[in-house]
Parts: sequence; C-alpha cells; structure tokens
Amino acid sequence: MAGMDLAELFEHVPFVDDLGIDVVEAADGHAEAALELEATHSSNPGGLVAHGGVTYALADTVGGAAVVSEYETVAPTIDMRIDYLSPATDDLYAEADVTRGGESVATVDVTVYSGPDPADGERERVATARGVYKTSGQGERTPWTDGVDVENLF
Amino acid sequence: MAGMDLAELFEHVPFVDDLGIDVVEAADGHAEAALELEATHSSNPGGLVAHGGVTYALADTVGGAAVVSEYETVAPTIDMRIDYLSPATDDLYAEADVTRGGESVATVDVTVYSGPDPADGERERVATARGVYKTSGQGERTPWTDGVDVENLF
Amino acid sequence: MAGMDLAELFEHVPFVDDLGIDVVEAADGHAEAALELEATHSSNPGGLVAHGGVTYALADTVGGAAVVSEYETVAPTIDMRIDYLSPATDDLYAEADVTRGGESVATVDVTVYSGPDPADGERERVATARGVYKTSGQGERTPWTDGVDVENLF
Amino acid sequence: MAGMDLAELFEHVPFVDDLGIDVVEAADGHAEAALELEATHSSNPGGLVAHGGVTYALADTVGGAAVVSEYETVAPTIDMRIDYLSPATDDLYAEADVTRGGESVATVDVTVYSGPDPADGERERVATARGVYKTSGQGERTPWTDGVDVENLF
Repeated sequence: MAGMDLAELFEHVPFVDDLGIDVVEAADGHAEAALELEATHSSNPGGLVAHGGVTYALADTVGGAAVVSEYETVAPTIDMRIDYLSPATDDLYAEADVTRGGESVATVDVTVYSGPDPADGERERVATARGVYKTSGQGERTPWTDGVDVENLF
Repeated sequence: MAGMDLAELFEHVPFVDDLGIDVVEAADGHAEAALELEATHSSNPGGLVAHGGVTYALADTVGGAAVVSEYETVAPTIDMRIDYLSPATDDLYAEADVTRGGESVATVDVTVYSGPDPADGERERVATARGVYKTSGQGERTPWTDGVDVENLF
Repeated sequence: MAGMDLAELFEHVPFVDDLGIDVVEAADGHAEAALELEATHSSNPGGLVAHGGVTYALADTVGGAAVVSEYETVAPTIDMRIDYLSPATDDLYAEADVTRGGESVATVDVTVYSGPDPADGERERVATARGVYKTSGQGERTPWTDGVDVENLF
Repeated sequence: MAGMDLAELFEHVPFVDDLGIDVVEAADGHAEAALELEATHSSNPGGLVAHGGVTYALADTVGGAAVVSEYETVAPTIDMRIDYLSPATDDLYAEADVTRGGESVATVDVTVYSGPDPADGERERVATARGVYKTSGQGERTPWTDGVDVENLF
C-alpha cells in the first residue's frame, strides 16, 4: 500500500464508517474489528440488543479485511453464513482468519464476541460466521472500485 | 395485533428505521420490504454499491417479518446464509416466504432484487438468502422484548 | 464431449454409482437426478427415512452436474448449505440450476423432492440446497481427474 | 441409555454402517467419528478422492452424535453448511462440538481431518461444517424412530 494502511483504508468505506466499525488490525490473512453498540443498532424498540444485520455487517467487514490483507485486491463476498449463539447486548469485537486461500476464492472463519471489553477482557461468543470471498478476476473496473485509485491503495 | 399492523411495528425497530428499511407487507408467512440505496450504504469510497451488510440486513429483516406474520411472536434469527449474485447499485426490494414452519423453528427463503423500480418493474436478482428463526420458547422476557409491551403487539 | 453424454459420465463416478444416483439430465446449467430409496440409505434402524447424507449427496451431485453442463470442466464443490424441510421416506428426485455463473465460481440452487413418483407426479419438497462450485483454475492435474482422460470427456 | 452406549447405537443406523462410519466417542456435547476411505467413496473414476457427500455424511453423523450425547433424544438435522478446504484423499476423522445448546435447537461445529492417521497423527483439515439440529418437539413417533424402542435407548 502506498502511504495508507489497510485498517485506515476501511474507515473510508461509507457503510463501515456509518455503522461505527473500526478495523483494528488486518495483516497476513488475519483481521480484527470493533463496534461500540449504540441505540441505533438495536433490534428492540425498548432496549438494546444488536440487530442481526449489525453483527453480520461486522462479520462480513472483518472477514473481507482478512482476505484483503492476504490478497491485496478488492474481495467481494460470494456467500456468508452467520450463526447467532447468544444475544449481543454490549460492545462487539470480531476476529477473522483465512482458512482456505485458493487462487480464485478464499474461505474465512469469523468469531464475534460481546462484553464490556470484548477485545481481550470479559467476553462471550455471540456469533460465528463463515464465508467465501472472490480473490481474482475482478478486472480493472468494478462497482466496488469505480472512482477509487486502486493502484495506489495496495 | 392490537391497533398496529405488523409492517408499522417494524418501523419502531431502531436499526430497521436507521437503515431506511420499509416493511411494505407481512402476512401469512410472506413479507416484502424496500430500501432506497443511499451514499451511507456504500461499500465503495468513490461510488455507490450496497455493502454486503446492507443487503443482508434487509434480507434478515424481511425474513423475520415473514416468520412473525405467521407465528405472531418474537422470532430471533438462529442462522442465515446469503449468496450475492450481482452488485447492488440501485434501490433494493426483498421478498420472503416461510418454507418450513415447524413448532420450534421456521425456515425462510428470501430473494433481494435491485433496479430503478425493484418492486415490480425492471429488476435484477442481486442476492438470495435462507435462514432459520426461532418460533417458540422465547419465554416472557428476552433481550428482544425488554421494555416492549408484547402482549399488546400481537 | 467425445462420444459420451454428461449424464452417462456421472455413472462412472464410484460414489454416485454406489449410492444409486441416476443423473437423468444435465445441459445448459440445469440438471436433474433421481435416487431410489433403499434400506441401506436409512437413518432409522427400524424404518425407512433417508439419512441426511443421502439427500445431501444427491443435492451435491446434481448441483455439480448443473455446473459441469455449463462450464464443461471439473467443478469441485467449495461450500454447500442444505435445509431439510420434511422427512424423506420415499424415492428422491432433485433439480438444480446455476443462478450465478461467474468466471471462477458458480452458485447453484437445488430442490430435492420425495414421493411415489417424485420426478413429475405426486411430490413433496424435502430439502433445498445452495452451493458454490469452482469453475476455473483447476490446472491440468487434480485429485478429481488423476487417471481420467479429461481432454476426451468434454 | 439402557445397556448400549451411544457410539454403539450409531452402528445400527443403516447408512452409517453401510458407509463405514465409526462413531468413536460421544459424550457431553462432543463426538468423534472415523471413516476409512474406500474405492466406492470416490468422486474420481480413475483415482481416490472422497465425494463431497461422503465427507458431508461423516460431518452430519458426528454432529448429530454430539447433539444426541447432550440431549439424549432423536435430533434431526435442520440445516448444515459444509466448506471444503482441501481434497480428501486419505482416511477421514471428524470432531464435533455443540456450540449453542438451546431448548429447541442446538448449533454444532464440525471439523473433518484427513491423513494416514487422521485421529491424532499427521492430519490435514479437509472440511469444516456447521449445522443446527432439532432437540425437542419430536413427539412420540417420528420417521426417525418408527420401529425403534426409544424409551430403552436413552
């Protein structure tokens, strides 16, 4: 990358920024990201529990970051499955690892934790996700890169 | 339901409202929902293509609406898989149907369309999703219902 | 293909043959396959209901046949999800369609039916499956083609 | 269980026996199972690589065994996703753990290994699977228990 690290790059993705996802780390097929749970993320009109879409968006983002950190190219998600293990009522933290790094697609495992300090303190596993991302054949112009100077990103 | 229809109920879910999801219809195990694509939904810093988390959040929401319309109870998602078929660069519209309505869980199929008028005009299938929702055993109090007068909702 | 049609080709796959899967049709991204339910397929020591692995093997096989019919190359499964909708207590029939045919991977939808004449008569949907198959980059030699004269197959 | 341990019970499941799956261990939500790869399991007419359905059948079986070991009831699979990480050209060994044990459904993680001694020696991870099983509401008679003396099994 030219003068910008990968974690910083993700701050420029509108939805990642809008949701409040912070990609903390992304290197060598491993990535971590945090999200402070806010009232707007809730699935409950009268309380605070993360909507499934919030947890998923975090998982998809950190999974993509893991892939991009290994392949240094735009990596659209082909499919992802998420399993919710317990309600997420606190801040979220997610860790992702590339488990199969093929030429054209990569498989990624994600675990999402919640808790008062879900990065390394008291934390509960609230969801696991597994997905496949495209790692080649995106060509020079894609809907994900139009208007972006990709050459200088990686 | 007591004086509020189900589609209206979803407007009160903070993340559904925040993201701009409009549940248009929800009855008898079938639901439809729309989302106008906005700049904040984008996955591309220099253009407009829906982040995977946006498409997923729409799918999860409309899937849940289909289940709730049949079971008239809170229905947390247990798992969901989404497959992205083409980039979503326009407004989104999703349709969901319960395909297996068991006593304790329901299976739902969702199709997400995009286009200038994705509800009934020119539209392209951009994603399919399939998930399983819990339909019983939520008990009287859950993170999804704390503070909500569930008795009077259904 | 040189002198052998695709459906016939699958009869030579040991596990497909051993399980009794009959690929009936495979062309232009669509495939159909049948399986007569036998006592050895059962999941119940005292009765006859297809083990989940039998239904899955049929789904995976017919999905692969749909992909191969479009791409004319070996197409290993990358991932597949199956949802069981009702117990399969009679003969099975499966239909598969490629829903996204990318350069490096294809997404496939499969529906599995059961009934006394599940091909076109009285039938019930017992499972749906969705998977992603690799369509390029297999190279000249793979574990799936060692010992096979691929050049002359397609 | 009355006089028969759980691992032994699975030997009586026709398809498990027919395929050669050996449930080695099943207790407290954890299970392990082995499968010696044979020519009939192959996906390649000219060589030996496990058909995706073989690996899946092992994963589904060991996942079910993990659930049954915790719930002591028949546990039909609701859905399962499998991701293939590398070709399985040797004997298989699978380990499963219940990751979410709810009242009505349980979520299970499975890892499938291959190698000359995949149980504890030289082994490679060839697939991961994740599924949801039904753990209640099966009633007294089901297609999975007709003809079986369930009362005396557990």
